[in-house]
Amino acid sequence: MKTIFDLETVYLDDENGAVVLIDQTLLPNEIKYLHLTTQPEIRQSIRELCVRGAPAIGIAAAYGAYLGVKNSSVEEFDDFYEVFKAVKQYLASARPTAMNLFWALDKMERCLLCNKEKPIDVIIDALRFQADEIKAEDIRTNKAIGEFGLSLLKMNDGILTHCNAGSLATGKYGTATAPIYLGQERGYNLRVFADETRPLLQGARLTTFELAAAGVDVTLICDNMAATVMKKGWIQAVFVGCDRVAANGDTANKIGTAGVAILAKEYGIPFYVCAPTSTIDMMTVNGEGIEIEERNPEEIYKKWYLKPMAPEQGVKFFNPAFDVTDAKYITGIITEFGIARPPYGQSLAEIMDIKHKAGEGGKGRVE
Amino acid sequence: MKTIFDLETVYLDDENGAVVLIDQTLLPNEIKYLHLTTQPEIRQSIRELCVRGAPAIGIAAAYGAYLGVKNSSVEEFDDFYEVFKAVKQYLASARPTAMNLFWALDKMERCLLCNKEKPIDVIIDALRFQADEIKAEDIRTNKAIGEFGLSLLKMNDGILTHCNAGSLATGKYGTATAPIYLGQERGYNLRVFADETRPLLQGARLTTFELAAAGVDVTLICDNMAATVMKKGWIQAVFVGCDRVAANGDTANKIGTAGVAILAKEYGIPFYVCAPTSTIDMMTVNGEGIEIEERNPEEIYKKWYLKPMAPEQGVKFFNPAFDVTDAKYITGIITEFGIARPPYGQSLAEIMDIKHKAGEGGKGRVE
Repeated sequence: MKTIFDLETVYLDDENGAVVLIDQTLLPNEIKYLHLTTQPEIRQSIRELCVRGAPAIGIAAAYGAYLGVKNSSVEEFDDFYEVFKAVKQYLASARPTAMNLFWALDKMERCLLCNKEKPIDVIIDALRFQADEIKAEDIRTNKAIGEFGLSLLKMNDGILTHCNAGSLATGKYGTATAPIYLGQERGYNLRVFADETRPLLQGARLTTFELAAAGVDVTLICDNMAATVMKKGWIQAVFVGCDRVAANGDTANKIGTAGVAILAKEYGIPFYVCAPTSTIDMMTVNGEGIEIEERNPEEIYKKWYLKPMAPEQGVKFFNPAFDVTDAKYITGIITEFGIARPPYGQSLAEIMDIKHKAGEGGKGRVE
Repeated sequence: MKTIFDLETVYLDDENGAVVLIDQTLLPNEIKYLHLTTQPEIRQSIRELCVRGAPAIGIAAAYGAYLGVKNSSVEEFDDFYEVFKAVKQYLASARPTAMNLFWALDKMERCLLCNKEKPIDVIIDALRFQADEIKAEDIRTNKAIGEFGLSLLKMNDGILTHCNAGSLATGKYGTATAPIYLGQERGYNLRVFADETRPLLQGARLTTFELAAAGVDVTLICDNMAATVMKKGWIQAVFVGCDRVAANGDTANKIGTAGVAILAKEYGIPFYVCAPTSTIDMMTVNGEGIEIEERNPEEIYKKWYLKPMAPEQGVKFFNPAFDVTDAKYITGIITEFGIARPPYGQSLAEIMDIKHKAGEGGKGRVE
């Protein structure tokens, strides 16, 4: 059996003071690692989607924050904290929707504050350790999501996924793809349908790339073909990732997700959101509180293409990067601590309670 | 006020024995007319979507059939009929789904048979006249659809449309765009949202092009953003064209239409199919009887792009050109003889009855 996809999405090159990541804008045609040493480079790599996917963004930001302060020459904690806060604010401004970006940076800040009595160089070491732990925790989280997700599947099931919530979007395994990789290891013979995911084509460029590399049976379709493959009876479950889950279960994810969820409901197909608890935002009551990033219209009609695909004059464009799937369309939210079911106000609170009792971060947490 | 879109999509250059049409594969970057004189050129222009849209295909095929027989040297009717039938079969094989292709060629054949007692050169003249009449009838039809469609709209309404059922898809005015152009003339201040319509981007390349040229307020979105604009309350009605309507109202149209219809239902937005009666196929009981063309997978991941957007190895592709929207999602089917409402089995039969009583084709019919 072939191995699962084994490229490392993002890691730290501590010796050279660089965040190293696959430039996902070049996939599938070129596998190129970027070595980013400055804060503007790191922020831009997030902004320009060289690294994307909520968990991977969090990991990149955590390493970025560490690199942003590691060579600080200040000697007083208060000064060091000011340096950190400036770095944090700068990186957090890269993208507005993904919860993990803020979550990872908050976690770094808490690590710093927990170690405030220690010498600056010890705090810096702790931050490095914390960033590593954010990545390690992500990988453990995804494995757990994979187990819970696979428990919902049968042999030979057809799965639809949207965008890339795969290994490339995370530390490893992915969220929506974790059940697929686990099923692949265990001979489930799953058939995956990947929405190409306009305008940035993460499904075409990334999901098919990593699933094919892992030997998974994957079929690429345009987003607007989802209704057809559902109607044909080819889909037994939808798995998607998410960028933020509100307290009531409303879920922000890549643009197009909400439409897929409505189609799944219409065809009686279960629709599952794979959500590390780091993406769950209990402070946001519902989807209306989630800011939705709008991106450059050229992504729609110009990017990737040989020639512009629409007139540039006289036409308006609307390019939201995400949408919010109403909780009522979601069959279950799969976390590393179990599967939340409606009503989500209650079940997500229970999941977060389990998490806090387990001690967030588990072993290796620097607190 | 600006004028409506005024390029001629397809016409006959009788002097040079050519079907002349805008090469729609080059839009919006280049306006180039093709002058097609041979049967393989004409068939290929349909096959390769230089001309597309059910009514425009019908017009091109009618002129093509005329050109295919006009220089025939046979003298006996039976021999001439054999020549015609070969031409008809050849052109009809260009695309399997659009009803108008067969409808137009059948109409040409009936014209030929009605004139069988006449000399060959008179029959050829009659065919020329019939082809012109197919185009003229299409334009009259679209104007009527525009009036019926506009009766369903209010000032400042937002309209979503999918693919291009515009002037470029017809003799003139379009079907789904006819109410929009009419509303534009009458100061309705309609706001149109155009799905880009993957993989061939007819919405981006053609619909925005012709609506912008006519001064209509048009916003381009990716197909997967339709749910978002509906949820925002920006859409008061959906208008789409169609390639074939079955007797029960099930409607084949560009891939993605079925999904839009389901979303519209979910958001309580009326969903209208603009259907010249030439697209209504009373011999097909329901959508299951409509053959759906599958096209080259390269349209999904390679066409238009600077580089392939998916790995070419290890990935499967599925590229249906059309889908079938179940009648239950359709609020009304707007024909040139009125608006059919559910149950369509009855209302479409009534529409076809009105048509037959009116004498199909009206004035100018050669029978």
